[in-house]
Amino acid sequence: MIKMHPKTNPIKAKRDSLLLLNQILLPETVEWVECKTAKDVFDSIRIMHVRGAPAIGVSAAYGYYLGVKEIIDNGKKPTAAQLERLKQMLDKSRPTAVNLMWATNEMKGAALGYLSELEKKLAEKGKGKKAVFNGLDMLLFLYNRAVQIHEDDAARCQKMSERGADFVQKKVKKKKYRIMTHCNAGSLATGGIGTAVGLIRALHQRGAVEVVHANETRPYLQGARLTSYELQQEKIPARLSVDSMAAVLMQKGMIDFIIVGADRIAKNGDAANKIGTYMLSVLAKEHGIPFFVIAPRSTYDTETPNGAKIPIEERSSEEVTHFNGERFAAKVPVLNYSFDVTPKENITAIFFEDEVFEPLK
Amino acid sequence: MIKMHPKTNPIKAKRDSLLLLNQILLPETVEWVECKTAKDVFDSIRIMHVRGAPAIGVSAAYGYYLGVKEIIDNGKKPTAAQLERLKQMLDKSRPTAVNLMWATNEMKGAALGYLSELEKKLAEKGKGKKAVFNGLDMLLFLYNRAVQIHEDDAARCQKMSERGADFVQKKVKKKKYRIMTHCNAGSLATGGIGTAVGLIRALHQRGAVEVVHANETRPYLQGARLTSYELQQEKIPARLSVDSMAAVLMQKGMIDFIIVGADRIAKNGDAANKIGTYMLSVLAKEHGIPFFVIAPRSTYDTETPNGAKIPIEERSSEEVTHFNGERFAAKVPVLNYSFDVTPKENITAIFFEDEVFEPLK
Repeated sequence: MIKMHPKTNPIKAKRDSLLLLNQILLPETVEWVECKTAKDVFDSIRIMHVRGAPAIGVSAAYGYYLGVKEIIDNGKKPTAAQLERLKQMLDKSRPTAVNLMWATNEMKGAALGYLSELEKKLAEKGKGKKAVFNGLDMLLFLYNRAVQIHEDDAARCQKMSERGADFVQKKVKKKKYRIMTHCNAGSLATGGIGTAVGLIRALHQRGAVEVVHANETRPYLQGARLTSYELQQEKIPARLSVDSMAAVLMQKGMIDFIIVGADRIAKNGDAANKIGTYMLSVLAKEHGIPFFVIAPRSTYDTETPNGAKIPIEERSSEEVTHFNGERFAAKVPVLNYSFDVTPKENITAIFFEDEVFEPLK
Repeated sequence: MIKMHPKTNPIKAKRDSLLLLNQILLPETVEWVECKTAKDVFDSIRIMHVRGAPAIGVSAAYGYYLGVKEIIDNGKKPTAAQLERLKQMLDKSRPTAVNLMWATNEMKGAALGYLSELEKKLAEKGKGKKAVFNGLDMLLFLYNRAVQIHEDDAARCQKMSERGADFVQKKVKKKKYRIMTHCNAGSLATGGIGTAVGLIRALHQRGAVEVVHANETRPYLQGARLTSYELQQEKIPARLSVDSMAAVLMQKGMIDFIIVGADRIAKNGDAANKIGTYMLSVLAKEHGIPFFVIAPRSTYDTETPNGAKIPIEERSSEEVTHFNGERFAAKVPVLNYSFDVTPKENITAIFFEDEVFEPLK
């Protein structure tokens, strides 16, 4: 069992609300945001109190539960149309992470399943009998489903991290690794120990980590604020540098392999991840450095044939031009793609919880 | 004659002081810093009120003049040891830009030349005659030498920009270019119209610029704060994005060529420039995009055989972890190289004022 520091668990669920660690304020301030409605969860995903594809999926599952709770608290039995609208609403919070749509789909399926099961039971009891709908029972059922999605995510993190660590130790023969990672694919981004940082935790537990180079990850600075913080909590030696310095670390022979998460992996193996990932993959190829991707199976989108078809979120220019509400940049138009697509040709291997996928093999 | 907006002229010299546009506060605040001593100029270079290799050279020339003025104002004739110490002091302000050492060397040479000329004249007048040293005359001589270095730099910017623009138009056949540049190699970085931005100004005057993509250039954000500002003043269409997005702009076929300045070019053609330049050169190679460097001849350091021998400045970790004095990053160690070295193999051509140098030809 790979351990993690409790301080970096970003999601606490209760029956009447969802508590999300406000990742905008980390590491300087530890604050929990309380979401009481599905719209609260939508807002928290949108403004990135919670971020990271798996954590977004888990949060959306609880958000879906809270949305159904609103309907039932108003004394209504949810209709199929309401359940679809709820999914649509939550899905719009972030377009790239496919785990989001996967989780809301699971929750909608569970809700519809519960209702149709109820209809069936009632039908068995005999025609003409009045339907008895127990709202509290349905809510408990949905809450448990969300908890299961959360726990499954944690279990998947464990499995893919061990599997990935095994593969790395076979593929890259070294006692201790100098690892580069980008953005935050840690426990802060998942319901468990993380994906990329999960693998780092696994290697660290085996005594096989020399140092982790975290790229700061502009514009949102997840590397500087979140990954560095997580590594520090775990007492894993970390070094922080600006994204454009990654090339120099590779040029100087200071990196043994690169590990990143993914927000969506197309059927052919092309992977969408935080802006900067494609850059790293090209640099890794140039310098002969293995480039690994790690993600839960729910990230693998067989409906999307290749990377060109993955929707890429563009976020506001203020993320690039302002810091803490203060403008520092000149007033010119900004391009701010949040993600990019790494072609399968640049990926050494993808670690899922149940498989190591080598796109070029 | 290629024109520039007067607002982006960073150096104003007077006989008793040097006024430097405070580039830390641009573009939000336009403030001039008054340097009255060589130490003031040293500090302004060190904390980057003025930056950019050619502008550092010009400022150091005026700083050298102010240093000699301090000695003469105290009623002394400067000694050779004092003139050497003055050079040593100013040279320590920034280690990578060779124009700095070039300019202080020129000024020291001028001062020593003036003094030895004086000795010769006195010797001609006959032995035993009392030596007459006119401090004001020496200062006027040195001031004029600094002005000449300044004006030469402006003239060189004009020449290399025209020469570079001619070469680009021959090499890359397009009516209008989509250009990428990094850091600020503009008028704010020189005594004239700039080097990389000088070439962009030249092409713009020929109606050949479609858009300029400025990388923000972490950690000091010269692209976001300075290059975007310069382009905006000139009404040249500009787009700003984070450094790691450069790869995506190339991947999407949005860049026709890349042009950057240089802080030092080794004898073999390896070029040191702002951190991130090496990354761009690798990405340009991967995507088949011409990669140009432009710099005055004073940047060409024939004493340094190759890039491995160029000293690379490391700056404080606060540049990476703080913004406006406020920490946002977790407390882990930082690597902050200010420059990197692009091997000659990745450079299509280097534009000097007097030559186009193609390292691979």
